Amino acid sequence: MSDTPRLDWPSRRDPPPDWRRGAAAVAALSFDVDAETPILAVDERYATHLSTMSHQAYGPRVGIPRILELLARLEVRSTFFFPGATVERWPDALSAVLEAGHEVALHSHRHVPLVQLSPDEQRADLERGLAALAAHGVTPAGYRAPLWQQTRYTLDLLAEYGIRWDSSLMDDDRPYVIDPGAGRPALAELPVHWSLDDWEQYAFVPEPDIGQNIELPRKVLELWTGELEAMRATGSLCLICCHPFLTGRPSRLRNVERFVEFARGLGDVELLTCGEVAARVLDDPAPS
Amino acid sequence: MSDTPRLDWPSRRDPPPDWRRGAAAVAALSFDVDAETPILAVDERYATHLSTMSHQAYGPRVGIPRILELLARLEVRSTFFFPGATVERWPDALSAVLEAGHEVALHSHRHVPLVQLSPDEQRADLERGLAALAAHGVTPAGYRAPLWQQTRYTLDLLAEYGIRWDSSLMDDDRPYVIDPGAGRPALAELPVHWSLDDWEQYAFVPEPDIGQNIELPRKVLELWTGELEAMRATGSLCLICCHPFLTGRPSRLRNVERFVEFARGLGDVELLTCGEVAARVLDDPAPS
Amino acid sequence: MSDTPRLDWPSRRDPPPDWRRGAAAVAALSFDVDAETPILAVDERYATHLSTMSHQAYGPRVGIPRILELLARLEVRSTFFFPGATVERWPDALSAVLEAGHEVALHSHRHVPLVQLSPDEQRADLERGLAALAAHGVTPAGYRAPLWQQTRYTLDLLAEYGIRWDSSLMDDDRPYVIDPGAGRPALAELPVHWSLDDWEQYAFVPEPDIGQNIELPRKVLELWTGELEAMRATGSLCLICCHPFLTGRPSRLRNVERFVEFARGLGDVELLTCGEVAARVLDDPAPS
Amino acid sequence: MSDTPRLDWPSRRDPPPDWRRGAAAVAALSFDVDAETPILAVDERYATHLSTMSHQAYGPRVGIPRILELLARLEVRSTFFFPGATVERWPDALSAVLEAGHEVALHSHRHVPLVQLSPDEQRADLERGLAALAAHGVTPAGYRAPLWQQTRYTLDLLAEYGIRWDSSLMDDDRPYVIDPGAGRPALAELPVHWSLDDWEQYAFVPEPDIGQNIELPRKVLELWTGELEAMRATGSLCLICCHPFLTGRPSRLRNVERFVEFARGLGDVELLTCGEVAARVLDDPAPS
Repeated sequence: MSDTPRLDWPSRRDPPPDWRRGAAAVAALSFDVDAETPILAVDERYATHLSTMSHQAYGPRVGIPRILELLARLEVRSTFFFPGATVERWPDALSAVLEAGHEVALHSHRHVPLVQLSPDEQRADLERGLAALAAHGVTPAGYRAPLWQQTRYTLDLLAEYGIRWDSSLMDDDRPYVIDPGAGRPALAELPVHWSLDDWEQYAFVPEPDIGQNIELPRKVLELWTGELEAMRATGSLCLICCHPFLTGRPSRLRNVERFVEFARGLGDVELLTCGEVAARVLDDPAPS
Repeated sequence: MSDTPRLDWPSRRDPPPDWRRGAAAVAALSFDVDAETPILAVDERYATHLSTMSHQAYGPRVGIPRILELLARLEVRSTFFFPGATVERWPDALSAVLEAGHEVALHSHRHVPLVQLSPDEQRADLERGLAALAAHGVTPAGYRAPLWQQTRYTLDLLAEYGIRWDSSLMDDDRPYVIDPGAGRPALAELPVHWSLDDWEQYAFVPEPDIGQNIELPRKVLELWTGELEAMRATGSLCLICCHPFLTGRPSRLRNVERFVEFARGLGDVELLTCGEVAARVLDDPAPS
Repeated sequence: MSDTPRLDWPSRRDPPPDWRRGAAAVAALSFDVDAETPILAVDERYATHLSTMSHQAYGPRVGIPRILELLARLEVRSTFFFPGATVERWPDALSAVLEAGHEVALHSHRHVPLVQLSPDEQRADLERGLAALAAHGVTPAGYRAPLWQQTRYTLDLLAEYGIRWDSSLMDDDRPYVIDPGAGRPALAELPVHWSLDDWEQYAFVPEPDIGQNIELPRKVLELWTGELEAMRATGSLCLICCHPFLTGRPSRLRNVERFVEFARGLGDVELLTCGEVAARVLDDPAPS
Repeated sequence: MSDTPRLDWPSRRDPPPDWRRGAAAVAALSFDVDAETPILAVDERYATHLSTMSHQAYGPRVGIPRILELLARLEVRSTFFFPGATVERWPDALSAVLEAGHEVALHSHRHVPLVQLSPDEQRADLERGLAALAAHGVTPAGYRAPLWQQTRYTLDLLAEYGIRWDSSLMDDDRPYVIDPGAGRPALAELPVHWSLDDWEQYAFVPEPDIGQNIELPRKVLELWTGELEAMRATGSLCLICCHPFLTGRPSRLRNVERFVEFARGLGDVELLTCGEVAARVLDDPAPS
């Protein structure tokens, strides 16, 4: 029987103690604009499955405009994670998000889980994603890995390419600082969790298998508000992750509005973008 | 790393602005009379699985008469999608639907996902399905793909064979016009969505794997009414999709009645057949 | 493209019109005493998985005594379906059920889905199951197929071996008469449905895959009572199927009590054993 | 057709009649500190999947401190099951549990299902797990098998190595005594059940497949309180099983508090550690 493997954790440290600026908890809304990428990352032959592609296209085509309209009405700034391939296929979606004044971060290029890529492939995917955003004048400060599945090497790469924060790990519900070492700059980590993601509750297509449940919006809202409410006792970051092709549907989008109203009604919760949280964690100047 | 594939979207345009005729949203009930076809499309050896076949036969045998009785009592016209093979096995179900004055549309011949078929096989399946309906004097104006899984070529075929509207895509929740090009006539698209389908909530047999959940009718009703309620703000089409072998069961059929009552109680929702919606979208004369 | 297969339905006819004797609906409780059989039918190597075997043994060891005590307190007679292999491993469970005055029916010998067996293997399994019951003086009038998966040939066999009724098909929710033909005696069919079965709601072990959901007893009770309530309008048979290793657990067993109370509270529902229903359907003398 | 396999049940007998000391039911909280072990037991290559490892590390890093703080506030002693590999990777988690005065039991070394191991491998895994605890001065009296999947041989081993009680079987909901035979000392068995485990309700990672549902904490609380309430009529042991990486999340941890309040509010339920229950069952002196 072999020894159990050692784990190669990056060095981490706590954020400045006042990162919440007196709030009991901090909430942030994020939108992963996956569009077709998670399906094509499984197999590119799905490009000819018109119905499935249309299911994904709902996100940039219908979901994004409605989400932007809602956030404008609520006066909430949010963070949108774009795969590079989505930027190439749906440039208008990126433009609309930028014009509305939201933060844009990178969500890889092709939405292939990084654990399936060699180091060179990871580097190439990151470079392509950055190039796709750069073509629209965007230099992202933040990154989120596809399926929240990255490796130790991903953090090194992010630091090397000037990314300031990541949002893909789950070993805390409070943000923290990662020191990748070897002289690379520190990264802020903004942890996520599956229970605050809309994917596990709503995602269904006949193939490939991306999920089997279609749950009630009411259930999803209770997952979100229940966690935020409890996080006021733990001083945590309640980072909601939505997908426009899922949460953009009419009754599901209401959850975003109700969550914001719930958070504001608590009176001691601050709503920030991911970049604003990261700046506090790194003691950087606030992003414009 | 290869380039990401380009997507071959058909040309689409908006429907006439008054397609809702002043209603806040439009609702439509549709019934896919699959009977044995989705099981036999996986493997024809299931024809000898008498219990599984009996599970599917509940639809035409028991579900259809009860649905027709309910729709008559509610004075609602609806659209029934028949696979050609169902027409051949259960001709009385088709006759009963026609006699009750509902709309009949085509749902392929064998309920094999079109993405698994070559272009020639798609054409043959369409021709056989049309022939099965023609044998009963029916020339369908509408079509729905099995499992809502079609290709770009399907739309060309539908236009070539005189189909006026399709209901298989998901990139919007408002109907729109598709121009297949090459001189083919325009098609109306009436989008569907998994959250308004009874299959994902109710379908279970030991094999093949057609689903693993058996949810409460109350949950399903909330999915439907919640979406319709929210669609009044987006001016959408709430297109409910039921299967007689699933929703024909006593407590599930109550949902159809409650949904109609809910829609009528809103006061600003119109209940139409799919064909009536399509005629408005294409600016055609209303179907008789 | 081949022709679609023809289905070999047995001849069926309606029961006598007064089979409900004036009740709006009829309810029946049934218990499938599977114990280890469904697991060992997948692979006999699970016999060495002590924990999994213990999960199944809960049924005859703890579930059966509690169920019998509850039914005695409620003064309800019920039908218990025993696989022959359960009788051989847990003879005391059969004795207790018989002493309590309930009906015993056969549930195959080894709980192998009959669709996996050749005709000769089906016959051998039936004979062994009958022999296992005969060793305890029981000649069953009724039968239920494992996983409700039987073939056309199963019905011939049942008639040949003197079985009077079957409870494995799903093409109705009212009992009916099957005429197997070839001079064989008629059978009563008492249809079942997955939504009235506790298995899909509760069954979970790490392996083999027998289910993935553990639902609330409250959900299950609503499935049962909702269906019974609606079946009063359709004049149906609400045939509940429980497994002692699942429903025998304390909070789940409460559902049986609440269902009986609900049925009695309706005032127009009769509670019968399966055999009593079958006798009415066949116009046989009532079973003792 | 072969004979059905015989089952090799260990000899069991009832506990002393007064094991509940007059309480209607006994409740116990237990925490399985799996951390990375269940993932690495599937495949050690997951050690490089940093996000998945971080999901598991939440348990010892964040969950354990919060659980200890809550139990201290509630003045409840509980039982923590540690795999040896967790002790080696997260020694501080073990120290914190010991300092807080809770009971520590063994949960194998590598969390590999014992049904996959040869007898020699089972022995080696047990010895390594005991050694990992011994390095911190802990000689555990209790054991729980990974995935509650053990064999007949496991019980022999446990008795041979001086373990006094096991908590992995499911053929009762009341504790009992196992006599392994061959002169080995008796073991107390404290039965578990999937419906009182948080894993089936909450566990999700993209790979490997450890579950597909993310349920509401409210549902889980109702599973627990409903069962405890009903167990007062059956005189049972309500043994709750939580995983710090799952139940340590803010809104889920509230369930632990609410369950304790519910149990105390009933007035006739006693809260014990597993070791305290086992001592009563074996008529041993109470553990310190």
